[in-house]
Amino acid sequence: MGDYHAVIGDLQAVHHAFDNSQQTEKAPSAALNGIDTTKEDDFPRWYQQILLKGEMIDYYDVSGCYVLRPGSWEIWEIMQEWFNKEIKKMGVRNCSFPMFVTEEVLRKEQSHIEGFSAEVAWVTQSGTSTLEKKIAIRPTSETIIYPYLANWIRSYRELPLRLNQWNSVVRWEFKNPQPFLRSREFYWQEGHTAHLTSEGAEKEVHQILDLYCQIYRDFLAIPVVPGRKTDKEKFAGAEYTTTVEAYIPATGRAIQGATSHGLGQNFSKMFNISVEDPKLDGTGDSSQRLFLWQNSWAYSTRVIGVMAMVHGDNKGLVVPPRVAPIQVVIVPVGITAQVPEERTDIHEYIKTMQETLESDGIRVEADLREEHTPGWKFNHWELKGIPLRLEVGPRELNESCISTSRRDTREKGRIELARLSVDVRAVLETIQASMYVRALEQYRNNVKVITKWEQFTAALDRKHLCLIPFCTREDCEERIRRLSERTADPSMRNDARAPSMGAKSLCIPFQQPSELQGTNTKCLAEGCELMAEKWCLFGRSY
Amino acid sequence: MGDYHAVIGDLQAVHHAFDNSQQTEKAPSAALNGIDTTKEDDFPRWYQQILLKGEMIDYYDVSGCYVLRPGSWEIWEIMQEWFNKEIKKMGVRNCSFPMFVTEEVLRKEQSHIEGFSAEVAWVTQSGTSTLEKKIAIRPTSETIIYPYLANWIRSYRELPLRLNQWNSVVRWEFKNPQPFLRSREFYWQEGHTAHLTSEGAEKEVHQILDLYCQIYRDFLAIPVVPGRKTDKEKFAGAEYTTTVEAYIPATGRAIQGATSHGLGQNFSKMFNISVEDPKLDGTGDSSQRLFLWQNSWAYSTRVIGVMAMVHGDNKGLVVPPRVAPIQVVIVPVGITAQVPEERTDIHEYIKTMQETLESDGIRVEADLREEHTPGWKFNHWELKGIPLRLEVGPRELNESCISTSRRDTREKGRIELARLSVDVRAVLETIQASMYVRALEQYRNNVKVITKWEQFTAALDRKHLCLIPFCTREDCEERIRRLSERTADPSMRNDARAPSMGAKSLCIPFQQPSELQGTNTKCLAEGCELMAEKWCLFGRSY
Repeated sequence: MGDYHAVIGDLQAVHHAFDNSQQTEKAPSAALNGIDTTKEDDFPRWYQQILLKGEMIDYYDVSGCYVLRPGSWEIWEIMQEWFNKEIKKMGVRNCSFPMFVTEEVLRKEQSHIEGFSAEVAWVTQSGTSTLEKKIAIRPTSETIIYPYLANWIRSYRELPLRLNQWNSVVRWEFKNPQPFLRSREFYWQEGHTAHLTSEGAEKEVHQILDLYCQIYRDFLAIPVVPGRKTDKEKFAGAEYTTTVEAYIPATGRAIQGATSHGLGQNFSKMFNISVEDPKLDGTGDSSQRLFLWQNSWAYSTRVIGVMAMVHGDNKGLVVPPRVAPIQVVIVPVGITAQVPEERTDIHEYIKTMQETLESDGIRVEADLREEHTPGWKFNHWELKGIPLRLEVGPRELNESCISTSRRDTREKGRIELARLSVDVRAVLETIQASMYVRALEQYRNNVKVITKWEQFTAALDRKHLCLIPFCTREDCEERIRRLSERTADPSMRNDARAPSMGAKSLCIPFQQPSELQGTNTKCLAEGCELMAEKWCLFGRSY
Repeated sequence: MGDYHAVIGDLQAVHHAFDNSQQTEKAPSAALNGIDTTKEDDFPRWYQQILLKGEMIDYYDVSGCYVLRPGSWEIWEIMQEWFNKEIKKMGVRNCSFPMFVTEEVLRKEQSHIEGFSAEVAWVTQSGTSTLEKKIAIRPTSETIIYPYLANWIRSYRELPLRLNQWNSVVRWEFKNPQPFLRSREFYWQEGHTAHLTSEGAEKEVHQILDLYCQIYRDFLAIPVVPGRKTDKEKFAGAEYTTTVEAYIPATGRAIQGATSHGLGQNFSKMFNISVEDPKLDGTGDSSQRLFLWQNSWAYSTRVIGVMAMVHGDNKGLVVPPRVAPIQVVIVPVGITAQVPEERTDIHEYIKTMQETLESDGIRVEADLREEHTPGWKFNHWELKGIPLRLEVGPRELNESCISTSRRDTREKGRIELARLSVDVRAVLETIQASMYVRALEQYRNNVKVITKWEQFTAALDRKHLCLIPFCTREDCEERIRRLSERTADPSMRNDARAPSMGAKSLCIPFQQPSELQGTNTKCLAEGCELMAEKWCLFGRSY
């Protein structure tokens, strides 16, 4: 691999130490086999280690690109299957547009491209020849798809037209890359739809946002705040952007979870996506064209990063059962070298269990490797975040039962063989629900209503998100960011570990804590004399 | 869209004439709405038209790239779902490697990269900056993935390791592009596996090839010949390549359907993918490393092109039921303006039918648009190749029945409402089977055993594939190609329509017509004095 190791640097070295340890090691030591820091002490290092050692990703010799190993990719597939089913019910159809786009098409919508142009990757050569015109790799597909909508849509009767594609897009960012959170190539779905009316379009924006809420809440066990972005934070070229915002307790930072944009008629006017007015139907007057109302919406593999950050612990990943590619692992225990038949009996017992669970639709793996101790295996599967471990030894064999160990709480239990699938499913559901409850509590304890400016930065320092009365103006938002860049604690100001990031507006939550308009509440921002328009959620964020 | 139309040229113009016609047209004319040539008269134009007008693809302003509309993309998804299920049973796990690759990694295996280097697309810029080192877009992923196999595989007990990914790859070819058959970006799956033994690897090569046979036979209703490529035609860097070869009756040309490669130890030695010899297990002697036996295998969206070419007719596409995103379309007929209640009743009847079929897992669409005549709709859905049309009018309503029309044979029938799903499913199965039977007959009538050189080119001219006794040598294969470049018919030699393509070896079929080795059969090629080793299938090909 040549320079590969040099490029990747010390995290790769950590990874190798770990990998090599698998080969020779007898008594596993936490330092080699597990996470060598804690979530509390060094969050970035902890995050990278749980992903690497949990076999979700590997590093790559093109900076900002990552290998998604089956442990993460199959999570993506599970969510993809569900989301496809839901959007197909809504009449969305999947398709695939090219990854390449000419400069001319890319630049068609100016305010849109300005949001991306610094990050566009350009192909200029093929083989040893120089291309006549350079060609971009899509950073997103609005300008690629919309000329086709203009061609394809011939009548209002064909509306709404709803398309979606699963692909990867490229944004050649130079900020510090982070697996899943900020990578130069990332995977997502992008939906693109066209509607006759603004109301029809708006309804869909919210239907989709609701699916994104479900992905976080019901699959990833993570609460999110749905709301609308301020103008400053909305998608380049959109009329408005709705978002679900998640919270990472360990860092006190928010993260944008997924967005559903109402594009208004901005693109349809640019690309002439229009139909004859239905009211004029049959009169032959086709001069009156109605421009369509468009939406675009996307969620990306970022969701996997959020999941890892929220649920992971100092033993490694913790994957919610509903998205876990492997939900249950079975490990034989207590086998002594003295009684070889015991091993055979236990392995048989486990194989039967495995077949039962599989046939009941539970994703299960049995770890019957003989070269590893049960302790080594516990550690191995905990790193990978498998939700439930089943243990079978001589005692379980005798008593027709199975010992259980939950990954999330490490709680032990016991189930009867006769009720295997029923009870395993029940435990998995319990794990799913209690992971959500725990995340919800952390979220509730950390979103604070703030009504005095003096309390704002101190609350951020305490890892809170702040719900504040806000005038919604862009310059005021910028001032808030600047004023909150430094910690509120004077004693920390020369400490390198002190927060050095200003708060951004995350969203104007749909569910407002109280009515603001018409009251005499002023905007919270220091120096702002305007009345507050909305409660707005602010926070330091990814 | 600017130069878009100019770039795309006259096919786009045809397409637009068609699209515009939808808007204003009252009495559909075949010339505007349908295919304006025949499969027999102008096959390339016919092929492009069925894809465009059948709404499978659209043209794109980057040459060699195409938009895959839902009509084709959802075929791909249906096959993907099945294939995923099958390979997961074999223990294959899905993952995703980056699309980018450094020059150094790409060039790691020399004989391999020579097969691709002229076609590699290079990214050299991001935003307005020039990259320090240019970066390639993958033409295939062997050299991307194999360094990781070397890192990940620590013990023979982890074998076989089987990975697969669904992605697009880029080969910037300058040959005449063809939708699905030869495009610069194309979609495929690529499987990459590592085995302890040559036997284990070989077994999998054939298991996968058998899945590819099933995709063609059971899903696309197309017979294929499984066999082994000659050394001249094998994959760059492989030890051997197995293939399924399909036949396009209209042109008499063969097409490579999908390939499953045994890579031997070629890459594993290059990338040091090795394990300790199991025989030395526990002895502590880790100096003896065994290099692994690797496979790679792929099928691409090309399968959709083959399907269109084999089954399409002069009315448009004909899609086999098992892969059809829409299997059944229901069209109301015989509604007269005099009796408005009739329309309501018929629409109600159809909606109930639709619900019944949907709940029984049949993919169905009802075309209740009032602005189009039944004739227009018949034409529209025939172009798209929907396997079965159901018609409901006043008579069907009165008699609790449904009229049927098969897309493949245009055969009419009638089914009872009470037996709706059962009979529809039966008709779909009949269509699927009889499409295969028809394709199989065409194939059988056109594969000829040729034992005299004088008959070889004439047989190619008659659109046959030729099974010949062959020495399997590369230079002899090249001579056969050269000698068969021109038609055998002297009267045609100055005719521009005459074949001008030499025959390539397609495969050495696993099922040989008879034993050759040890007989005194000579190689068929003119001027070759060697004994024949194998029967080899030759043909003009895509």
